[in-house]
Amino acid sequence: MSKLRLKISMSLDGFVAGPHQSPENPLGIGGTRLHEWVVPLTAWRAVHGLEGGEVNASSRVVEESTANIGATVMGRNMFGGHPGAWDARDPWKGWWGTNPPFHHPVFVLTHHAREPLVLEGGTTFTFVTGGIEDALQQARRAAGGKDISLAGGAKAAQQYLAAGLVDEMEIHLAPTLLGAGERLFDGVGDDLHGLTLVRTVAAPTVTHLKFARPKS
Amino acid sequence: MSKLRLKISMSLDGFVAGPHQSPENPLGIGGTRLHEWVVPLTAWRAVHGLEGGEVNASSRVVEESTANIGATVMGRNMFGGHPGAWDARDPWKGWWGTNPPFHHPVFVLTHHAREPLVLEGGTTFTFVTGGIEDALQQARRAAGGKDISLAGGAKAAQQYLAAGLVDEMEIHLAPTLLGAGERLFDGVGDDLHGLTLVRTVAAPTVTHLKFARPKS
Repeated sequence: MSKLRLKISMSLDGFVAGPHQSPENPLGIGGTRLHEWVVPLTAWRAVHGLEGGEVNASSRVVEESTANIGATVMGRNMFGGHPGAWDARDPWKGWWGTNPPFHHPVFVLTHHAREPLVLEGGTTFTFVTGGIEDALQQARRAAGGKDISLAGGAKAAQQYLAAGLVDEMEIHLAPTLLGAGERLFDGVGDDLHGLTLVRTVAAPTVTHLKFARPKS
Repeated sequence: MSKLRLKISMSLDGFVAGPHQSPENPLGIGGTRLHEWVVPLTAWRAVHGLEGGEVNASSRVVEESTANIGATVMGRNMFGGHPGAWDARDPWKGWWGTNPPFHHPVFVLTHHAREPLVLEGGTTFTFVTGGIEDALQQARRAAGGKDISLAGGAKAAQQYLAAGLVDEMEIHLAPTLLGAGERLFDGVGDDLHGLTLVRTVAAPTVTHLKFARPKS
């Protein structure tokens, strides 16, 4: 069966976003420091339509994280815009412009129903009001046998982790403190539901920690 | 000048001790999971007077962490026993028996004055009521040019980190969740005071993250 794979950047003190997130500052104060390791990489720049960049130990981790993904699940906060009901006249269309870097179906967890949003390049955002299992089921159907990426943010990740539905987790640990914001593991408890450290990749400014379930 | 070196085991969700610490359960619920990686090592067992054990990628990290240490600083909670004033008739003598594994002067941060406790094998516990800088100064004098180990617990580490007094920090990241307890970075803010990731050692069940200040 296709896997649900969480990948997320986290600070040394456990935050995946800084405090005071807003449409102008979607990652919160200091949050961009979580992603400084990825922006220079050729593997990341290519996906975002940018040329150049560098190759280092992180490159294969980024390439692997986008390989064999057939659908994405994300929380409303990551899709972004504003809290509450969608603006009927000019609904928020995501952070990624007219041709988002997903190129596959994306399922957005939300309390507010909305028609699917079809953008260029194969990315369709479907808004799911039925909860995390419903979203996962729809994503699994859409992925056609490939894996599903759990893109974040914190609250979506927490719900899937607490329910034991995550099959693989790659934490990009940024060696920095945010001091406040959204913690990845808030409310998850002390149970990783069998997720075990299976690989550590040391890069100059980030440590990649991959967790998976041992094959039974 | 001699360095203040913090080494501490931390869970993936940032805890260095579990909840409900007590004399019977000094690491709190689940806290022993933080140290499972070290107990099988020959390098650890030898220091604690035990034979046998194994050698793996963690061994040199443990050996390095005890090398060139001339004194130790720890918090009252790590020295342990009970909160409040010392029992005048039968004062707590630490967790480590009559011949503790330090073999050098140890300075304990406390609000409660007490005569030094001289034990076997070169370990003397000196109780410092003058705060973290006073304890560091005393430890530096006693270390005779060698480095000072900051042994924990959380509150002592937080105070030295927040004050920017830690010169080296090695975090033994245990790939497990505790869900509650004492967080290493609580109240430290978002500033590592120049501490930068300088080395990552991947062992099977722990990741060692070493931070230091770049040489100026």
